[in-house]
Amino acid sequence: MLEKTTRMNYLFDFYHSLLTPKQQSYMSLYYLDDYSLGEIAEEYDVSRQAVYDNIKRTEAMLEEYEEKLLLLQKFHERAGLLKKMKRLLLEENPSKQELLDTIVELENLD
Amino acid sequence: MLEKTTRMNYLFDFYHSLLTPKQQSYMSLYYLDDYSLGEIAEEYDVSRQAVYDNIKRTEAMLEEYEEKLLLLQKFHERAGLLKKMKRLLLEENPSKQELLDTIVELENLD
Repeated sequence: MLEKTTRMNYLFDFYHSLLTPKQQSYMSLYYLDDYSLGEIAEEYDVSRQAVYDNIKRTEAMLEEYEEKLLLLQKFHERAGLLKKMKRLLLEENPSKQELLDTIVELENLD
Repeated sequence: MLEKTTRMNYLFDFYHSLLTPKQQSYMSLYYLDDYSLGEIAEEYDVSRQAVYDNIKRTEAMLEEYEEKLLLLQKFHERAGLLKKMKRLLLEENPSKQELLDTIVELENLD
């Protein structure tokens, strides 16, 4: 569950602008502010089931966007390469060639 | 017009997966393969106006996606920073600090 929460937080971060305001509110309360379905239902004066359905649908949409655009996957790949460059730069005599190769890998990610 | 074509090619590259198959076909023929509206209309046995309307709508959609996700803008920013790092690495004694600062700038783009 924690793993799913982390993933949904990431996906929401990348794709929230593609969601409706209501979807954004529910997801934000549920995943960022840790509200329960019941609390969100009360807040918006709708049924718990309606909130649940909306969130499930939104989760599926976020996964679909990720399948199509791979923003989260590329973010992780990019972060790994940047970390590698930092590590290289901490060495006494960093290999310029290795740094240049990593830059090319970063360019090819886009 | 050339500038618009370049921009549409970029936007199509980033967001084509969010378009319908028909939108993808029309855009690809028009912008990548340089077909005229009339030629696409003939190919699909529809009116020239239908093709025109579809392409105009798709162009607006692509701009909307860019407004929300900024993938093209970030691509250009990232490309500039990677180019800067390459230039730094070509110097005799590259500044580690400047390279590390640029890596942080890259991290903050995501």
